[in-house]
Amino acid sequence: MSCVFCAIVAGDAPAIKIFEDDDYLALLDIRPFTRGHTLVIPKQHTVDLTDTPPETVAAMAAIGQRIARAARESGLHADGNNVVINDGKAAFQSVFHIHLHVLPRQSGDKLSFAKGMLLRRDPDREESGRLLREALAKLDAASEG
Amino acid sequence: MSCVFCAIVAGDAPAIKIFEDDDYLALLDIRPFTRGHTLVIPKQHTVDLTDTPPETVAAMAAIGQRIARAARESGLHADGNNVVINDGKAAFQSVFHIHLHVLPRQSGDKLSFAKGMLLRRDPDREESGRLLREALAKLDAASEG
Repeated sequence: MSCVFCAIVAGDAPAIKIFEDDDYLALLDIRPFTRGHTLVIPKQHTVDLTDTPPETVAAMAAIGQRIARAARESGLHADGNNVVINDGKAAFQSVFHIHLHVLPRQSGDKLSFAKGMLLRRDPDREESGRLLREALAKLDAASEG
Repeated sequence: MSCVFCAIVAGDAPAIKIFEDDDYLALLDIRPFTRGHTLVIPKQHTVDLTDTPPETVAAMAAIGQRIARAARESGLHADGNNVVINDGKAAFQSVFHIHLHVLPRQSGDKLSFAKGMLLRRDPDREESGRLLREALAKLDAASEG
């Protein structure tokens, strides 16, 4: 089996599980950015946001929210969380079975240096907006067709 | 009105809108990390993952997925996307009206430097897992109670 998350779902690879139901599994990332860094995965294999049903993305987000709330209440004493889906290799996705990250955060933790490191400007915001609206209208037309 | 997103929803502040329906609005971030950096917000004000209904978080994620798919198909030529909720100040949240970021990404873009900069280890993964499971069980008991 070439997908490590499918192997975990099948019980053929180890994982520290946080949550499990019939369709979803949450486990600790083996290379955590922060303590308690958790991945929420659907048991059904899909790759990324292009092929995953919207209901699945919605359910992953709701499970991620519960874990984020739990992290604040937990002995990890999180002050907040980043909840992240990396969609595609260009966006740092490294396992090609869709997953949602929950990163429990603490004020002043080692990730906080990253804030404000980058320039934040767009040479043509109006054009960027137009391009996205156009593509969205095309997607909608295709899904209604 | 002190919340800038509520002002935008009310039509009292400008925004470049990508999507709008009765309950949600998607607009370009005024300080984009990448071209087409979009925010999905619920029109109803809530602060973060602690007070936002799960149905709202789920709907924001599904809208974010549509925008991510649109970004790949669009003239922005995204190769992927980061879809992110920053939950709390410790997690870089700066506007305290919940929002979901969609960052269209391109292979080798200026954000790609960030990958692998950080140590990824946990002194006690088993303990981290236990702490999260405990807190989740408490949350579930509370919501059923």
